[in-house]
Amino acid sequence: MESDQVRNKQVIFRDYVSGCIRESDMYIATDSVKIKLQSGTKGVLVKNLYLSCDPYMRMRMKNLPADFFMKPFAPGSPIVGRGVAKVLESEHPEFKEGDIVWGMTGWEEYSLITSTDTLFKIQDRDIPLSYYLGILGMPGLTAYAGFYEICSPKKGEFVFVSAASGAVGQLVGQFAKLSGCYVVGSAGTKDKVDLLKHKFGFDDAFNYKEEPDLNAALKRYFPEGIDIYFENVGGKMLDAVLLNMRPRGRISACGMISQYNLEQPDGVNNLMHIIYKRIRIEGFVVSDYYDQYPKYLEMVLKYIREGKIVYVEDVADGLENAPAALVGLFNGNNIGKQIVAVASE
Amino acid sequence: MESDQVRNKQVIFRDYVSGCIRESDMYIATDSVKIKLQSGTKGVLVKNLYLSCDPYMRMRMKNLPADFFMKPFAPGSPIVGRGVAKVLESEHPEFKEGDIVWGMTGWEEYSLITSTDTLFKIQDRDIPLSYYLGILGMPGLTAYAGFYEICSPKKGEFVFVSAASGAVGQLVGQFAKLSGCYVVGSAGTKDKVDLLKHKFGFDDAFNYKEEPDLNAALKRYFPEGIDIYFENVGGKMLDAVLLNMRPRGRISACGMISQYNLEQPDGVNNLMHIIYKRIRIEGFVVSDYYDQYPKYLEMVLKYIREGKIVYVEDVADGLENAPAALVGLFNGNNIGKQIVAVASE
Repeated sequence: MESDQVRNKQVIFRDYVSGCIRESDMYIATDSVKIKLQSGTKGVLVKNLYLSCDPYMRMRMKNLPADFFMKPFAPGSPIVGRGVAKVLESEHPEFKEGDIVWGMTGWEEYSLITSTDTLFKIQDRDIPLSYYLGILGMPGLTAYAGFYEICSPKKGEFVFVSAASGAVGQLVGQFAKLSGCYVVGSAGTKDKVDLLKHKFGFDDAFNYKEEPDLNAALKRYFPEGIDIYFENVGGKMLDAVLLNMRPRGRISACGMISQYNLEQPDGVNNLMHIIYKRIRIEGFVVSDYYDQYPKYLEMVLKYIREGKIVYVEDVADGLENAPAALVGLFNGNNIGKQIVAVASE
Repeated sequence: MESDQVRNKQVIFRDYVSGCIRESDMYIATDSVKIKLQSGTKGVLVKNLYLSCDPYMRMRMKNLPADFFMKPFAPGSPIVGRGVAKVLESEHPEFKEGDIVWGMTGWEEYSLITSTDTLFKIQDRDIPLSYYLGILGMPGLTAYAGFYEICSPKKGEFVFVSAASGAVGQLVGQFAKLSGCYVVGSAGTKDKVDLLKHKFGFDDAFNYKEEPDLNAALKRYFPEGIDIYFENVGGKMLDAVLLNMRPRGRISACGMISQYNLEQPDGVNNLMHIIYKRIRIEGFVVSDYYDQYPKYLEMVLKYIREGKIVYVEDVADGLENAPAALVGLFNGNNIGKQIVAVASE
C-alpha cells in the first residue's frame, strides 16, 4: 500500500431485492483508497461522519425500469445515500479542505464525490451535525414542503400524520402545532406514542398495531374528520383515512413505507371519497423544493435555537451496523430519525 | 277531480338499492296535481319537458349515511333530477308563466319546485332546449371545471378521457382539442369509438372491453405517457392509468361509474405512482363552480354556433322509458348524453 493509501471500509449492495430486505442484502468489505485527489479530478474527497437511513432507499434496491424516476443501486458497489462528511481535499471552487458538507455520498469511510450539485456546505455549526440528515436536511425540507406547500394548513384544521415519530412525521406534527392546527399521530409502539404526546406536543396519538379497525380509531380521534393527512405509510391506513376526510381535505403523499417491501401493493378501495369530498391527493419529491432550502433553514434554525422545535434521532454506531439500521426502518425499529455514526471529525 | 286538477304520471323510487340497479327499483304511478299555486306558496309550478339521467343519481338510491354529502331519494316519492321545464305558474319574482327553466325537478309530468336556488332561466332559445341538461347545463360545466380548472391544460399535452362518449367525456375531448392537446378516449362499443374519432375529433380512441390488458393498451396509445387523465370510471382503468402517467400529471376525478353499483369497490394498487411521478388527483363537484356558469355559457354557445363543438344526445321517449334509460347508463347502453323527453312545450 502506498503511503497515501488507506483502508476504506464499505457497505456493499449485494444484488436487487424482491420482497423484504434483509441485512444479508448488504455486506461489509474493505477496499483501499488513495486519499489524495489526482489533479484534474472534478470533485471532492470526503471522510464520512454520519450516514442517513431513509425509506426511499428501499426503492433503489429494486431492479427498476430504465424510465423510473430514480436509478437502482449498482450491485457490487457501496450503497449510496445522504451523509454528513468532512472535506479532505477539493478540486471544486465552492468547497475546501476542512469544510463540513451534507449531500449524496457513499456508505463507506471515504468517498470521492464527483456530483456536487446537491452537496451543501454546513455553515451553522452550533447545531449537532447529524441534524443535517434530518431536521436541517432532506427530511426537514420534505416535511416543510409537504405540509406548507402541498396542504396550505389553516389555523384550527384537523391534521393526521402517520409514521408520526419518524424523520419527517415528528416535524410535520410540530409544524402543525405551530400553525394552530389540532394534530394526531400514529406510530407502532407505546414508546413512540408517548414520544408523540409528551415530547413533540401532538394533541393525541395512537398505536396503529393495537387498532383492529383503523376506521373506528380515526373516528374516535377525529370525530369531526380530517382536513389534512400527511401520508407516510399507504395501504390500509390510506384506505381508512379516505373514509374520514372532511370536504376539501388535502392529502400530502410523501411516502408509503408499508408498501415498499411488497411485490404486489395493497389495494385501496375507498377512492370514491376523493369525489364525494372533493379531496386533493398530491405527490411530491423534495428535490423540486431545493430552492426553498435557504428559507426553510433560516426558519427552522430559529425554532431550534428558541427551543420551539425538538428533534429525535436514533443513532447506530459504526458502518458494520448500517445494514441492520436500514432494514430496521421497515420493521419500525427506529425511534426518530435513523442515522449511522461512522466517524468523528 | 276538480277542474284545475290534472293527472300527473310519476316515476317512483321504490326503495334503497344494493348492488346493481334494475328497472324494478322504480315504478310508474299516477297521482293528481292541482295546476294552480295556492297563494303564499314560495315556488314555481312547472310542466317537465326533458329529464336528465346522470350517473350520480345511482348514489342517491343508496341508504346513505346522514353525514354524506348528498341525500338519498325518499322511497315512495318520485325520482329527483335535473330537467328542462316550462313555468305554468310562479310565486317567485325571477320566474314567470311561460318561462323555460332548467334545474332540479321531479320525474313526473308536473312538479312544484320550492327550492329555486339552482333553477336557471333559459335565455337562448335558438339551441335545442335539451342541451341545457348536457352541454349547456351541469355536464357541460362539469367538463369545463374539471378540465380547465382542475387540470390547467397546456398545448401539446397528452390527455386521456374515459367514458369518453358520455355526457361529460365528449366535451372534455373537444375542449382538449381546442386547447391544442393530443387526446385519446376510451368507450365500450365500436360505435362509440367511431363517434369519438369521426364526430368529436379525438386523435384516437379504443374499446376498453376489447383490451385484456389496459396497461398495454394505454402504453400503445400513449407511448410517451399521459399528462392529464379525466377520470369518469375508476377501478381497473384508474389503476392502469397510474402506471402510465407522466411526471406532474393531473387526474381530474369527476366520476367512477364502474364502481357505483358495487357494494365493495375495486382495490386500486398503483397509488405509489402518485409519489414517484408527483401526480395530483383532485375530486370536485360542479356546484362549487356555479359562479362560472355565465362565463362558461357564453364560451360554449359561441363554439356551438360556430360549429366548433358538437353534442350527441340519446333520447328516450316518455316517462315510462325513464327507468330503463337510467339503468342503461350503467350498462353503457346510451350513446351520448342520456335524456328523457317527457312532453313538448
